[in-house]
Amino acid sequence: MAAVEKRVRLNADPDFWPGKDHAPMTGVDVREDCVKIFWADGRVGHFHPLWLRDNCLSPSCYHPEAWEKIQDLLAVDPEDRPASAVLGADGELEIHWASDGHVSRFPGPWLRRNCYDDWALEERRPHRVLWDAAIAGERPEVDFTAVMQTRDGLRDWIYKLRTYGFCIVTDAPKRSGVVTAAARRIGFLRETHFGTDYSVESKPNPENVAYTAIELKTHNDLSNCEAPPGIQFLHCIEFEATGGESILVDGFAASEKLRGMDPDAFDLLAQTPVVARFHDYDWDIRHRAPTIAVDHNGVVQELRVNRQLEAPLDIPNEKVKPFIKAKQALVRMLRAPEQEYRFKLRPGEIMSFHNRRVLHGRAAFDPNSGRRKLEGCYVDCDQAWSRLRVLERAE
Amino acid sequence: MAAVEKRVRLNADPDFWPGKDHAPMTGVDVREDCVKIFWADGRVGHFHPLWLRDNCLSPSCYHPEAWEKIQDLLAVDPEDRPASAVLGADGELEIHWASDGHVSRFPGPWLRRNCYDDWALEERRPHRVLWDAAIAGERPEVDFTAVMQTRDGLRDWIYKLRTYGFCIVTDAPKRSGVVTAAARRIGFLRETHFGTDYSVESKPNPENVAYTAIELKTHNDLSNCEAPPGIQFLHCIEFEATGGESILVDGFAASEKLRGMDPDAFDLLAQTPVVARFHDYDWDIRHRAPTIAVDHNGVVQELRVNRQLEAPLDIPNEKVKPFIKAKQALVRMLRAPEQEYRFKLRPGEIMSFHNRRVLHGRAAFDPNSGRRKLEGCYVDCDQAWSRLRVLERAE
Repeated sequence: MAAVEKRVRLNADPDFWPGKDHAPMTGVDVREDCVKIFWADGRVGHFHPLWLRDNCLSPSCYHPEAWEKIQDLLAVDPEDRPASAVLGADGELEIHWASDGHVSRFPGPWLRRNCYDDWALEERRPHRVLWDAAIAGERPEVDFTAVMQTRDGLRDWIYKLRTYGFCIVTDAPKRSGVVTAAARRIGFLRETHFGTDYSVESKPNPENVAYTAIELKTHNDLSNCEAPPGIQFLHCIEFEATGGESILVDGFAASEKLRGMDPDAFDLLAQTPVVARFHDYDWDIRHRAPTIAVDHNGVVQELRVNRQLEAPLDIPNEKVKPFIKAKQALVRMLRAPEQEYRFKLRPGEIMSFHNRRVLHGRAAFDPNSGRRKLEGCYVDCDQAWSRLRVLERAE
Repeated sequence: MAAVEKRVRLNADPDFWPGKDHAPMTGVDVREDCVKIFWADGRVGHFHPLWLRDNCLSPSCYHPEAWEKIQDLLAVDPEDRPASAVLGADGELEIHWASDGHVSRFPGPWLRRNCYDDWALEERRPHRVLWDAAIAGERPEVDFTAVMQTRDGLRDWIYKLRTYGFCIVTDAPKRSGVVTAAARRIGFLRETHFGTDYSVESKPNPENVAYTAIELKTHNDLSNCEAPPGIQFLHCIEFEATGGESILVDGFAASEKLRGMDPDAFDLLAQTPVVARFHDYDWDIRHRAPTIAVDHNGVVQELRVNRQLEAPLDIPNEKVKPFIKAKQALVRMLRAPEQEYRFKLRPGEIMSFHNRRVLHGRAAFDPNSGRRKLEGCYVDCDQAWSRLRVLERAE
């Protein structure tokens, strides 16, 4: 493959595109365990020589068409170091390696995009806005037609889902099948043991308990699954009944409040994996996980709160009482009126939310006062956040 | 609802069925923070009073038809204690509660099944057999017809998948579509960004790189997903080519060997979440997780080893070299000939394996020596282990 042809193909990979505001590299400084890169905007990146060798972008190490590493991990010499490291005439970092004379070239935009200094990680961290009942005055919304017909509308929708954990799609057609079409704009549907989509219907004088109208406390769906569904969609098609307000609550915000007020309770919920379980004639699906999952930086990543799916605890006896009290403290926080966003979902609106962040519930309603018909489905976070990243690629 | 009717419905729930070898309860002893239960086989269970109140099985606390908790968590008084606890004439544990006079009744089989003393947890722990190259002489197999037509065959298949992490289905028809039919015996198919099923085909003089015949190092599929697929199925339909042996390696066994030989490397891999990523024109799916995931008891639960999907590390510079050396130590262990099971998958065989435990790979082969055609798909662990639990219910 000729050099020019390689470059063209490599550049098809958006990791190599120059971003709108990427600054050129202006200098390089090689130290014992660090290659320092200086950018024109004053930023400095610190790259370990081994990191650079591990990520070599030459066509024998990184497949220019598959956009994947092909250099075998065991071929990387952990003691290798640059014989020289300079900025080439084309503005790329060019390294000649001491061990075998191999040459690596790193374009500035790629290095900037993958820089792992604290400032760089901070720059790339997705924005997250925690909220409480005051969100009622400025709830995140997008227009159905914009979502279905434009890239910007779709990007705006997923951005709001990631930032707030929920977003209301307005002015959707009031008919069956619309919610799956909208969800498929984000990704393929997540199948569960309840199917790929479902309908929640009540009518006057219901003949079946499945169409009841009782209150549903706020909860996360399917906490018994290894990966509970990510984004949930609920489309209101008909709603003539009295009552039945929707309730959304930001589980991340409530968890952080609990951490502030009762850190021991928070820690117990984060450090005690417990089993959730659904079982019927056909299924017995169980998963063990903490009630509040935090990442390695202590940032809350998901909640699993669903009373109906709680299996009997199997933790040491001395932890039973502290655990139940801690969980009660969390549930009290989640149900505090100042945390809850209560509203009546209108026909033509689709409530979309991150099921493991934002808990959902429903006030009781009078089924004899009129019909209520919703349709729903799920799309996993893998697909949703991927779609947002693709839409955010520089064009 | 009459008492008898309630009892009948409650007993439909298999949690209440008497097991084949369940011993009756012979005594109860109430202490300050413990209700001790004595069984006829000499076992003793220790239940916290609050645990018993939290798990009350009365129809107002546990829905006899939905088989789910309906008692609100906040209705549980953490200070409640038994006014009395006796074995009733029907052999059930009967508790009258001090706070409100509520009565709870617990059948012996239910208590035994949910007993959380160490001996009871140990009894219920699924059997796991770690293996190495010696598995070649006694590899787990099941017959296709038994799997498709009998409960015992299906149970045997999933049991072997859970115990060994893989199982070869023999004597399957050599035609397209068979693998999805077999997989659906276990559960619904897992959709990924590659679809719900796929075909791996090579033929003499391939016109496309997708049909290459190069070596594939052992790896876990889709380590870039939040939940990489659970059970993977690969059905050999045609295989006339020379070479191309399949390789399976027990990642749990290799991890345990690493832990024994180099505990620091093991800990670093278990405690350093890193990003895996797949990106092309349509997708950019990323997930951060440790290379070896252990549960709260330190037991290995999953591996994520896939060089092609490794994103550039974004860990502190001082951890770059120790991490890469630790990962190399793991990969060396995984590739050690004494760990690998190498065999030629024959037409009519389906290789099924737990994708996050057992890594798979393929030796290079000569595509001009004949055709090679495989079909594959995935089913998640939620469904697989659920199906096994349902099949293991006493009948």
